[in-house]
Order: sequence, then structure tokens, then C-alpha cells
Amino acid sequence: MDTKAPSTSPQDTARRARVLTGYRPTGPLHIGHWFGNILNMRKLQDEHDAFFFIADWHMLTTDYDRTELLPERIRGLVLDWLAAGIDPAKATVYRQSDVPEVAELALLLGMITPLGWLERVPTYKERLRDLAERDIANYGLLGYPLLQTTDITIVKGELVPVGEDQVSHLEISREIVRRFNRLYGPVLVEPQPLLSESPLIPGSDGRKMSKSLDNFIGVSDEPDEITAKVRTFITDPKKIRLGDPGRPEICPIFTLQRLFSPPDHVAWIDANCRSGALGCVEDKLDLAGRIVEYYRPFRERRAELERTPEIVDEVLAEGAAKVRPVVEETMKAVRRAMNLA
Amino acid sequence: MDTKAPSTSPQDTARRARVLTGYRPTGPLHIGHWFGNILNMRKLQDEHDAFFFIADWHMLTTDYDRTELLPERIRGLVLDWLAAGIDPAKATVYRQSDVPEVAELALLLGMITPLGWLERVPTYKERLRDLAERDIANYGLLGYPLLQTTDITIVKGELVPVGEDQVSHLEISREIVRRFNRLYGPVLVEPQPLLSESPLIPGSDGRKMSKSLDNFIGVSDEPDEITAKVRTFITDPKKIRLGDPGRPEICPIFTLQRLFSPPDHVAWIDANCRSGALGCVEDKLDLAGRIVEYYRPFRERRAELERTPEIVDEVLAEGAAKVRPVVEETMKAVRRAMNLA
Repeated sequence: MDTKAPSTSPQDTARRARVLTGYRPTGPLHIGHWFGNILNMRKLQDEHDAFFFIADWHMLTTDYDRTELLPERIRGLVLDWLAAGIDPAKATVYRQSDVPEVAELALLLGMITPLGWLERVPTYKERLRDLAERDIANYGLLGYPLLQTTDITIVKGELVPVGEDQVSHLEISREIVRRFNRLYGPVLVEPQPLLSESPLIPGSDGRKMSKSLDNFIGVSDEPDEITAKVRTFITDPKKIRLGDPGRPEICPIFTLQRLFSPPDHVAWIDANCRSGALGCVEDKLDLAGRIVEYYRPFRERRAELERTPEIVDEVLAEGAAKVRPVVEETMKAVRRAMNLA
Repeated sequence: MDTKAPSTSPQDTARRARVLTGYRPTGPLHIGHWFGNILNMRKLQDEHDAFFFIADWHMLTTDYDRTELLPERIRGLVLDWLAAGIDPAKATVYRQSDVPEVAELALLLGMITPLGWLERVPTYKERLRDLAERDIANYGLLGYPLLQTTDITIVKGELVPVGEDQVSHLEISREIVRRFNRLYGPVLVEPQPLLSESPLIPGSDGRKMSKSLDNFIGVSDEPDEITAKVRTFITDPKKIRLGDPGRPEICPIFTLQRLFSPPDHVAWIDANCRSGALGCVEDKLDLAGRIVEYYRPFRERRAELERTPEIVDEVLAEGAAKVRPVVEETMKAVRRAMNLA
């Protein structure tokens, strides 16, 4: 069993722990993704043996009837990643469906996974409820955690970044791995959670920023689009006009200011919002300007990448070539252990 | 959509309908398989574009925890098929797990298959009940009909041999195909049932001959083994000794005599059993001799094949090479239709 310990020395490639994270190509990256995922991925690629994959098959569990946009979204996600500093020289960047062995291992793991384990996964029932108006109670949706387990184990992932509230999501993967190893011998690596900070980013309505709520600011948005969107954000409802005292602790604009402004400026906003001296419009325009500046290098780099669109296929082909030997090694061991080869 | 009409002219390869049948490698072939499957397969390979596959992944739905015997059973099944006259020059003979694209298509079809369709398949509940003492309520077992649908559609199977009581089993495959084609365009071929005669072969206890009931006579059994097994068969319980009149219509030995004896001899048995002149022991020894003779060429050919065991790998490699281009063509069309390529 491959159980090399997580690394203490980031330079020593041979001893770096393999960390895996996947991303559903749901559309343009927004600020919530940036602070929730991208910054963490940049850290992971420096400190670990990072595998980043585009989970296009996972998309089908809920969006099987809207695949028209998939190719463009995958292209967009690769360009976003590259522009954001995800470096294919540091991390293995690949697309799930470029690794057909994932389907084979998912099928095999499905043979040993009790339906009850899958049915009790909280996100399954949540998804069914959230998308109740759509027709998604399909076999593939129930198998979502199985496919995730496959993604992790097929590359011998040791660490999986999860938020504190998601540690339990990894538990079913660990259970499936333990069951497999008990049945067939110690072949699969049991993944461990890697607790990741993931600040809650509010959207324009104060709820968590998300594409489906249409309350987001895209990291690729043009400056005037950013400004227009920031202006639509709610603030403290009791601060109606300049001079009214505000409560930064309930203001989404203030939450974002803390991400985009230096601490002394944040302190200044806090004081002047509370005193009433700072009006919401001025605060918003200040924030919009900072967001525009923060993402300027990203926008420029992305525009440059768009001029060489073949880079997307190159990155994905290179990633597939890097991941293939890893996957083949796992599958050889799996097939042998199950007496299928 | 590939919808060439079933052939009227068996010689014209280009117009022969593609027929597919799979077989779980559960152990040695017995007489029930012979008259239920093998004779039909010999007919199919002459009259159709026949695809015969060894369903080793299907085995895992119930036997995931007993795979030790799988390699030997697969070898045995190929040798049985060859000795029985299944001809790889006429039919495409392959092993399911040699076609990993089957797993990919199964995963994709799972994304569009409602759980309710799978849960209402009668054989699913039957299997759960029959094997209640074992731990098989797994995701893979529920997905059995999906995997069957994949086996059929990935090779563009047009006809699937089924008994009259199994026509409904094919209906879910047809439903899944229709749903796929409605969502993504006319890519998959909707299979049609090919009604096949499949006489009910009784075992030694009078119930249907089956491996799990241990009431079978293997087609590879040695002559003295055949004779010993035939002697254990029940007969008419009211015919206790020579002279007692018997009722051939309830006697498993008589049912087998009708398969292994010429009609005039069957008529003679019928008359002399009813009159009491023919005793059960004599009847059994007569039948045993006929079974021994019937399978003599099979046993000899199988013994000969065992002297060149490499033939199994050759046949399976050749079959995989024949099926691969067919499968690749289907998968290219599927991936394109789903915007995955």
C-alpha cells in the first residue's frame, strides 16, 4: 500500500503528499471561487504533489440535459486556471473524461458499495431537494460519491482539501477504500482530509456568492461590469443616507473590503462607516476600484492566453499524459487484486 | 442511426442483423445451458452477425466476494464454447472486461437513467431475496440492467435472444436507448427481442437444472460421473418397483430422454413406462448411456483443446480486436452527441 507520509520538505518531490481536487465546469469563476479555491490551489501546487482535474463527468449528474455549454466551459476553466497562476509545470492538470479508467474503477467500486451508504449521504438528498423541479433522481446522481472516491483513489490521492463542514463527505470514500482493501488486499490508499480555510464570500444579496443565485462578480468581468455589480450589493438596511451610522459586521461590502483592502484602510472604513462619515456609495466605488485593480493582471493574462487558444488542448493533453501512468499502475493492481487480470 | 433491417439472407454478411448474447462465467456448463443456450448460439452464429461475450463484470454484481475462481471459470467457459462448436471465425467472442469502454458508456447511461426504472426491475428484487443471506444490496447490483443495456448498445446490437418470459427484461434497455436518443440525438440502436426456444431442463430433484441447486449434469462430466448423477434423479414417486405403471409426463428422466433419444425410442419408453414393463433403473441406465454418447465428441474435443491452453488467450485477444473498432465507433458518436468530445 502506498502510504508515504505527507511531506515536511516541499522541495523534496519524492516525499510530497499527493493532494487532489476537482472542479465542476459550471461557468465563469467568480470571487467566491477565487478565495474559496484558487488561492488554495496555488498554495497546494507549491507545497504538495497536486492533481487538479476538471470534473466534466460529475457535471452530468445534475446537468445531463444541458451539455451544449460544456466544451466552452471546460476551455474557460482551463484559461481561468492558467491566468490565475495554476501552473501545469507544478501541478498535474487534467480532465476527468480524458481518463476512461475512472469509469472502469467506478464500476468496480460500485460492485462493493452498499446502496445504503450512498443513500445516506446528505448532499444527495440536498441536491434532490434543491433541484426538485428538475428530473435528476438518476442512477448517476446517487453514485456521485462513488465517482469522487474513484477520482481520488485512481491517482492514489492522499489528501483531499475540504472545508471544516465537509470532513464527513470524505468519510464515505474512506469507508469504500477500507472495504475494498479488506476484500481484495491493501491496494487502494485511504485519503485523509486536508482542512482548508475557505472564507464565506457574500454575494450582492448578502447570501453566499454563487452562480445559481446570480449574485456574483466574475473574476473575468470587465471593470465597468464589476463597478455596476458592486453598486447592486445590499448594505446595512438601517444606513439609508450619508451620515447614518452603519454596522460593518453585517455589510457584504465590508466583508469584501477585508479581502481587497490593506488592514489600515479596513480600519478606516470600519470607523467611518460606524460614525456615518462614510457613505455606502463611496464605499462601494472604493471597493469596485480595488477589485478592478486586483484582477487587472488576471484579466490581462487571460486576454493574452485567449490569443493562443490551442494552449488549452496542449495543457489537457500534457495532463492526460502525466496522469495516465499513475492511473494505469492503480488499475493494474486493482484488476489483479480482483482476479480480473 | 444504424437500423439495418434483420436479414432474410443469411449468406449476405452486410445485411445480417447483429445479435448479442452474454454469459456469466458461473462454472462448468451443464445440460440445462446446453439446450438453453449453446444450441441456440450455434444457430445464431450461422444466421446472424453474432457477438458472444463473457460477462465477467456482471459476475461481480453477486459474486464480488468470490473472485478467486473467476480466471479459471473464464478459461473453462471459452474451452466449453469452442468444444461445443462456437466458432470464433463465425462469431465475435470476447470478454466484457477487455472492453473498458463498456464502463465508460455504463457511467454515461447511468447519468440519464432514473433510479425508479432500475428499482422496479423484477429480477433485482428477486436476486436480493434469493441471496438474502449474502451482502449484495450494492450499487452495482441495482445497475445490472444498465450494464446489460451498455453491453448491447455499445456494439449496436439489434437483436437480443430472450425467452418468452424475459421480453420485459429488454424493455428497460429500450427505454434507456429512447431516452438517450431523445436527449442527444439518434445515436444508439434500440434492440429488439429475438424470441428463442429454451426448453425447461429438469435437474435431479425435478426442479430446473441449475448450478446453485447442485442438481445438474455437467456437459464435461466423465461417463461414470454422468451415470452416477442420472441414477440420483427422482422419477414418478408412485412407480416404486418394476411392474408399477409410471407417468412419463411428470418424470425428469423422460423429459431428458426426449432430448437425447430418437422419437421412436421415446415412444417405446412412454408405452413401457406406463405399462410398468420398463423399470426406472433400466430407463436411467439407458439415458445415461445416451448422454455419455451425445457428449463424447464434445469431451474429446475439449480434452484436445486443453492440450493447447494458449488458445483461450488467442481467442479472447482476437475477439477484443474485432470488437474494438465497433465499440470505438459507438463511443465516438456518444461522446460527440453528449458534447464530451
